[in-house]
Amino acid sequence: MSGTVHLVGAGPGAADLLTVRAARLLAEADVVLHDALVSPEVLELATRARLIPVGKRAGRPSADQAFICRLMIRAARTGRSVVRLKGGDPFLFGRAEEEIAACRAAGIAVEVVPGVSAGFAAAAALCAPLTRRGLARSVAFLTPAAAKGAAPDTRWADAAAGADTLVIYMGKRDGPRVQAALLARGLTPATPLVLAESVSWAGETLSGGTLGDLAALSGAAGDGPALLLLGGVFAEAAAAHAPAARGVRRA
Amino acid sequence: MSGTVHLVGAGPGAADLLTVRAARLLAEADVVLHDALVSPEVLELATRARLIPVGKRAGRPSADQAFICRLMIRAARTGRSVVRLKGGDPFLFGRAEEEIAACRAAGIAVEVVPGVSAGFAAAAALCAPLTRRGLARSVAFLTPAAAKGAAPDTRWADAAAGADTLVIYMGKRDGPRVQAALLARGLTPATPLVLAESVSWAGETLSGGTLGDLAALSGAAGDGPALLLLGGVFAEAAAAHAPAARGVRRA
Repeated sequence: MSGTVHLVGAGPGAADLLTVRAARLLAEADVVLHDALVSPEVLELATRARLIPVGKRAGRPSADQAFICRLMIRAARTGRSVVRLKGGDPFLFGRAEEEIAACRAAGIAVEVVPGVSAGFAAAAALCAPLTRRGLARSVAFLTPAAAKGAAPDTRWADAAAGADTLVIYMGKRDGPRVQAALLARGLTPATPLVLAESVSWAGETLSGGTLGDLAALSGAAGDGPALLLLGGVFAEAAAAHAPAARGVRRA
Repeated sequence: MSGTVHLVGAGPGAADLLTVRAARLLAEADVVLHDALVSPEVLELATRARLIPVGKRAGRPSADQAFICRLMIRAARTGRSVVRLKGGDPFLFGRAEEEIAACRAAGIAVEVVPGVSAGFAAAAALCAPLTRRGLARSVAFLTPAAAKGAAPDTRWADAAAGADTLVIYMGKRDGPRVQAALLARGLTPATPLVLAESVSWAGETLSGGTLGDLAALSGAAGDGPALLLLGGVFAEAAAAHAPAARGVRRA
């Protein structure tokens, strides 16, 4: 092996929700290739690095995957300390497999630093445990996002039928379709739901309701990265963060 | 509110897989109440705190829940900086709900710091993403552990049927029962499986095989905290860490 790429989870956004190891690697890095969803305050920790944005966001232009791989490999081969920084945890909806394969094919070692995925930060912000002993014993993390060029389908929702708690990534833009897929899997419209946007960022927003309200809630949301959290464990949190309840508290 | 309890995720074990926020709170804490599964190197970060072990481990005596709550509330009321430290993320199988309710009832604020759950650290150690674009779009985190006094059941496995990737906590001791429940949900005996023990600790062990091997693999495991990881995304990792493959590499 000649050279190493560190594939690092940036956590949900707040700079102090990075791991200590990730913060150290960023401070030491010569080159940081980062996604669009990595927050500016995290990037500020990479004080001596060249920052290269290679972000992919739904519906917007993105760097070509082969180009990202070439940049990464070239930097690692010249002995520079290279960090590939991905939002949340790099292995949950991080599309890391192509970059790992390219590094391996080029004889570059890959070391992975896990991170706090946004779903955990959202539960923390809500003070709502994802599980409850004896009552909620399974949590499914899902995404309706299909592979590039693939037709939309609803197979992603198969895990929703049996899981006690659901955390859905990249589902906000497709509120009505997500709602239909979950209702078709047997969830009731009364299932408590929280839409969490920009979790741990300055503009964090938590909006509560039920699965029946999903289309309205997602239509009213901003354009930050968003999660949908569903299940009985969120009953209190969804009520506390219902738009009406928030209005009352503000008054 | 008078006083605050910080409910903090200790991460999987390695001290630098804590979040920066958790490390700071530990360094500042006067009192740390911690689970049995928190590693010694993490506890060493709490240099000025009184450390109170209140751990629960399957089959061993544990501190009474009401006693833990009383200790926590008394320390917070006297203005001390109190950390309640739980392994991994506090809200994934952390049994946090009783302690949160007790604090709220006593007028003590609770602030939650998420952490890296062991499943993410295991995937990082295996260099195996939990998801793969278009192919593995759901990950279920499950536990067969029932509520205290409840009869064992297999409802926990309902989420296994539809999820592409499974991460099972506290399932090692019950290998044969877990295997039977998963086979009954339609998983095949050839499903790739990794048993990950003491992830990110000094004694980390990764053993690969298939669901058909689960009883044998779990019987041969040590007594560290263990996870089972299942699904097509682990095919390569399971082969690379099969006991035979490991023997070959050692020779």
